[in-house]
Amino acid sequence: MSVLEKLQNLPNAIPTPAAPAPDILRCAYMEIVVTDLARSREFYVDVLGLIVTEETADAIHLRTFEEFIHHNLVLRQGPVAAVAAFAYRVRAPEDLDRAEAYYRELGCDVRRRRDGFVRGIGDSVRVVDPLGFPVEYFHDVQHVERLAWRYDLYTPGALVRLDHFNQVTPDVPRATRFMEDLGFRTTEDIEDADGVVYAAWMRRKPTVHDTAMTGGDGPRMHHLAFATHEKHNIIAICDKLGALRMSDAIERGPGRHGVSNAFYLYLRDPDGHRVEIYTQDYYTGDPDNPLVTWDVHDNQRRDWWGNPVVPSWYTEASLVLDLDGSPQAVVARTEESEMAVTIGADGFSYTREGDTEHGFKLGQQL
Amino acid sequence: MSVLEKLQNLPNAIPTPAAPAPDILRCAYMEIVVTDLARSREFYVDVLGLIVTEETADAIHLRTFEEFIHHNLVLRQGPVAAVAAFAYRVRAPEDLDRAEAYYRELGCDVRRRRDGFVRGIGDSVRVVDPLGFPVEYFHDVQHVERLAWRYDLYTPGALVRLDHFNQVTPDVPRATRFMEDLGFRTTEDIEDADGVVYAAWMRRKPTVHDTAMTGGDGPRMHHLAFATHEKHNIIAICDKLGALRMSDAIERGPGRHGVSNAFYLYLRDPDGHRVEIYTQDYYTGDPDNPLVTWDVHDNQRRDWWGNPVVPSWYTEASLVLDLDGSPQAVVARTEESEMAVTIGADGFSYTREGDTEHGFKLGQQL
Amino acid sequence: MSVLEKLQNLPNAIPTPAAPAPDILRCAYMEIVVTDLARSREFYVDVLGLIVTEETADAIHLRTFEEFIHHNLVLRQGPVAAVAAFAYRVRAPEDLDRAEAYYRELGCDVRRRRDGFVRGIGDSVRVVDPLGFPVEYFHDVQHVERLAWRYDLYTPGALVRLDHFNQVTPDVPRATRFMEDLGFRTTEDIEDADGVVYAAWMRRKPTVHDTAMTGGDGPRMHHLAFATHEKHNIIAICDKLGALRMSDAIERGPGRHGVSNAFYLYLRDPDGHRVEIYTQDYYTGDPDNPLVTWDVHDNQRRDWWGNPVVPSWYTEASLVLDLDGSPQAVVARTEESEMAVTIGADGFSYTREGDTEHGFKLGQQL
Amino acid sequence: MSVLEKLQNLPNAIPTPAAPAPDILRCAYMEIVVTDLARSREFYVDVLGLIVTEETADAIHLRTFEEFIHHNLVLRQGPVAAVAAFAYRVRAPEDLDRAEAYYRELGCDVRRRRDGFVRGIGDSVRVVDPLGFPVEYFHDVQHVERLAWRYDLYTPGALVRLDHFNQVTPDVPRATRFMEDLGFRTTEDIEDADGVVYAAWMRRKPTVHDTAMTGGDGPRMHHLAFATHEKHNIIAICDKLGALRMSDAIERGPGRHGVSNAFYLYLRDPDGHRVEIYTQDYYTGDPDNPLVTWDVHDNQRRDWWGNPVVPSWYTEASLVLDLDGSPQAVVARTEESEMAVTIGADGFSYTREGDTEHGFKLGQQL
Repeated sequence: MSVLEKLQNLPNAIPTPAAPAPDILRCAYMEIVVTDLARSREFYVDVLGLIVTEETADAIHLRTFEEFIHHNLVLRQGPVAAVAAFAYRVRAPEDLDRAEAYYRELGCDVRRRRDGFVRGIGDSVRVVDPLGFPVEYFHDVQHVERLAWRYDLYTPGALVRLDHFNQVTPDVPRATRFMEDLGFRTTEDIEDADGVVYAAWMRRKPTVHDTAMTGGDGPRMHHLAFATHEKHNIIAICDKLGALRMSDAIERGPGRHGVSNAFYLYLRDPDGHRVEIYTQDYYTGDPDNPLVTWDVHDNQRRDWWGNPVVPSWYTEASLVLDLDGSPQAVVARTEESEMAVTIGADGFSYTREGDTEHGFKLGQQL
Repeated sequence: MSVLEKLQNLPNAIPTPAAPAPDILRCAYMEIVVTDLARSREFYVDVLGLIVTEETADAIHLRTFEEFIHHNLVLRQGPVAAVAAFAYRVRAPEDLDRAEAYYRELGCDVRRRRDGFVRGIGDSVRVVDPLGFPVEYFHDVQHVERLAWRYDLYTPGALVRLDHFNQVTPDVPRATRFMEDLGFRTTEDIEDADGVVYAAWMRRKPTVHDTAMTGGDGPRMHHLAFATHEKHNIIAICDKLGALRMSDAIERGPGRHGVSNAFYLYLRDPDGHRVEIYTQDYYTGDPDNPLVTWDVHDNQRRDWWGNPVVPSWYTEASLVLDLDGSPQAVVARTEESEMAVTIGADGFSYTREGDTEHGFKLGQQL
Repeated sequence: MSVLEKLQNLPNAIPTPAAPAPDILRCAYMEIVVTDLARSREFYVDVLGLIVTEETADAIHLRTFEEFIHHNLVLRQGPVAAVAAFAYRVRAPEDLDRAEAYYRELGCDVRRRRDGFVRGIGDSVRVVDPLGFPVEYFHDVQHVERLAWRYDLYTPGALVRLDHFNQVTPDVPRATRFMEDLGFRTTEDIEDADGVVYAAWMRRKPTVHDTAMTGGDGPRMHHLAFATHEKHNIIAICDKLGALRMSDAIERGPGRHGVSNAFYLYLRDPDGHRVEIYTQDYYTGDPDNPLVTWDVHDNQRRDWWGNPVVPSWYTEASLVLDLDGSPQAVVARTEESEMAVTIGADGFSYTREGDTEHGFKLGQQL
Repeated sequence: MSVLEKLQNLPNAIPTPAAPAPDILRCAYMEIVVTDLARSREFYVDVLGLIVTEETADAIHLRTFEEFIHHNLVLRQGPVAAVAAFAYRVRAPEDLDRAEAYYRELGCDVRRRRDGFVRGIGDSVRVVDPLGFPVEYFHDVQHVERLAWRYDLYTPGALVRLDHFNQVTPDVPRATRFMEDLGFRTTEDIEDADGVVYAAWMRRKPTVHDTAMTGGDGPRMHHLAFATHEKHNIIAICDKLGALRMSDAIERGPGRHGVSNAFYLYLRDPDGHRVEIYTQDYYTGDPDNPLVTWDVHDNQRRDWWGNPVVPSWYTEASLVLDLDGSPQAVVARTEESEMAVTIGADGFSYTREGDTEHGFKLGQQL
């Protein structure tokens, strides 16, 4: 049974529009508001080595080494750290009309700008989706040099692709059903024996995800993720942060994910926006790609080596903005939280199914 | 101008069928005939570490660590070393009907077997395509365990995915036009100033290729390629071959490709079938993904470090079979050969455009 | 001022013998008592991939891939998990006479066996040194095949050398002075502003250490360490432990050390003996190699990325045996403990000198 | 039988001095004359990323990331590309007196400068040794920051240590005997069945070598070698050279050596001086470290993967200077050359002992 079939009769489902969904290619860029542009520039350009495509007094457009579109990240100076847009590229210009119709049918706030909301992008649609997230769709974009072969510019921790977004939302099945309707396909999820879903990963491009839905108070942005070629590139980023006496920017990892099988690292930027560095998940492009479901109590689900997930990783996330730039209200998750069921006096995790151990490594001391 | 537009008025083009093309997901497996199954098993299983899904007296079905379908390679005992099928997976069962109609319209030999031509595969269509290659399409396939997380089984040179095929054909633009009609998109090619095309890379899944067309006497199979996670995995394969005193199985590399930007190694199996080990090309899934065209005289096109391409790599390739198992006749390329224009007394290559050097490194001594 | 000069007037120093010290080449092997030989064999052979040189009903002799002497580790079945010997190789047979005289002058229990205490080793001297540790010196040893070139046998996490020991002792300056007299040279240490020394690293071969003295209740064995070639080899060990559902064998790491600059991982074997996997420290062989002193409050001293040191790593260690096989009594450290001064309500660590932050990352929650 | 014993009755041996040899720690730096200092700076600083310790109008002093002495390489502007000194560090100031006496007894040109021959070095002795090489010994040296922890400065191909020199000399056994007298120990060599020695590797520090003697017309300098941490660092250097369109600076490799088991790359600097990048040989510090002897016809001796050694690597090398700065005359090797016996019509190499193949891979086409 596919995920979509399983969610067919979801009581609180967002209605499936009659209008066809736009054909989404991939997560393409995120626009984030930062409160000190110079400091953010240091973090993303001087430390992480993203490429500056274009910058103005109040915004910096950055891309990765293998990207050929104008940018994968826009930093915009503003009063409150937040996410202004999760932007996806669509296959054709016509998909913008489809996006417009699709979200209007859903009753969302929908805005279209023929000359784009940010530099380098043409005709675009921005919406606040039914989950409360600001989402952009675009096709027209300025091409820039793909720096893949420019090894003279590479740093030891070179970021080569934008890999995915991760969103915090109170009700994961409701969000998943919405995303599946939109054409996303779920590749992995975390559940418990009672069927509570704690998180789900979903993709358009054939990797483990273009975005994930993480159960929690939302709408908030959990993280955006860039890919490196190899694991040592991620280690090099940690080493550099140590050398710069910025090791407290490392929130969690590096480690191996259970979910996705990727090697990972979580950083926090100067505003607290979370950035993942990620490498080596697997191909998911077949329509019958097997769903991988993890038990929430499996201590290797989020770190294959059983290293503890720090509480801030569960609880902190970035605000998201509406289309007028005001922060969206955050709605509390009512189902159980992954942190509560796995850490502390009432939670438990196991290394080997059937074991009755409570707590794990550092987790038991939190 | 897209590649398809450029090839619109190709004089000797294979006619575009009126029937719609099947929706191809990806290159999925190759069936090759080997003359000594036990020796081939040693090479692919004991040395390269492919996983045996199933084996019988006369055939071995092998897969990579991240694969969830039954196999990526079938070794079949036979009298003449050759390729029996280049097999692609299609999106839906209905695509088999489309494939059947498409190739019948082209006047090809088309055969369909509801129970598959090999184990693990259901309903399939095999054709000899207009270029002379035996091609299979299938959707139904037995799912097997994706061993991605089974690090207890990994070897230092673990092969994690089938990446692509490479075919030798006399007329590259004609072949490219045919493949573009079929839905493939060209990502890179090698040309000269006179517009002669020496090779072209084309994809369905969003990597640099699912297959490539290499100019030469054909139809023949140039190589099949498996992916590793990192570069050191490829080095480990070389090191192991040295330890086994099988270093003469290394034909070319390891090295960095110019085309595709991937790190590579070419091996020859006991029958001379060429196997590439490959890692880290780039995302190509956007419809306007920029075509990269290399000058045939650019000495870094095939090896970014300018290391020489050995003559056997240009001249040797595997026979391919028709649907009755007889080797296809090989037709000579009439246009200039890449080897001739780049190596030896009449050929030349340069490291820096505008340089007039003739020959390069070892190349000048060949 | 050299470390030896600095410790010249140490009040409680062990007297420097008049007899010359033996010329120690390197840490060579450790003999450990394990309570379930079969389980330990699984850990060291099946999981970590050490090479079995020789095994009997009650002992297994293991070596690393680049070793040419009989073993680097002896597992011996016994009633109490403990260390039977820290064994060093000396330059010449005559150094055994020197060792004997040296320790007799110190009043130690000294025993000599011309046919060795374990298989593969000839003439040897075992002593209980003034710090309470069982130490062996030997020169004669059976040569075995150096498997460095046997890449057909390598695993993804291949251990290629024994790198060092680490000993827990209450009084680090006293221990350091003793080791410097014996010919060791200190390469790095951890101190506080009051001159309390928390740990010191010392070497004979020109790496950061052959052994280290860690301040704590002792004599106990903190860990023994094996080297890999690259960082990904260490990650592969973690991944394999995850696949085997043995991730709880990972105690700390992987990470980058501040001290030594090496990449590390700490495991616990089935008896709780701690094993470090270690790679890429630096050359220290010049007599004026600069001592690196770390502030105990520098949060990057033990993990360059500021990841927390788990409490068990500070508090747990293996018993050591006297020459009759009885566990040595453990003497409490009277100076402040590194854990107490860095973690918890009274301790503090900083990322940037001058910062006043208390606690760090997970540390503050312990 | 040790190498020294085997060479005891060498007919043309250089007499062993009665004076004791200086205690040599390690190869420490090379001074080379370059004909275009700015171009050489580009190569060593901008491309290879060596650290500039100090530079003047006519000389640049460079070091590696883990070095704490003033430099590992001096580039000096001059009229003829050549080597001015192979410099070794000795254990103590008194070793300079020993060096002086030792070489005077041998009748060599010996010069001493209390303030050093180059910046950053104090009291030094320079000699032309009996093999015709300009050699320096020093102990006093200015300490500089060891940049091992400065990951903010690392490049993808960071050079972390000077590893070794390699010298071309006509008579390898004569040279080896001289070096063994001086305290070096041979770790590996290449011989044929008739006992002709083609090359020998010898060490003071416990790696495979501080220098090697390569049979050929000499005295000449074959190469100097820097170490990286991992194999991908070497690949990164190749990739960068490709990006800079300098791939013709790559002469041979990258590959795995048979001899030394290290991963390697050979470059040529703007003057043709050969630089090796090298990583991961093995510990050799025990006095009975087993000598590894390779058959000159073993095709995996110089490249474990059997990739061909280019002729220039055998035939080209740098001139060396006498103490007045004049190039030393080059004396022809009279014994057979490794290239002649392994490549071409009269030479042969095998992959598997006993095979009768002549030529190998590209080699047969040279």
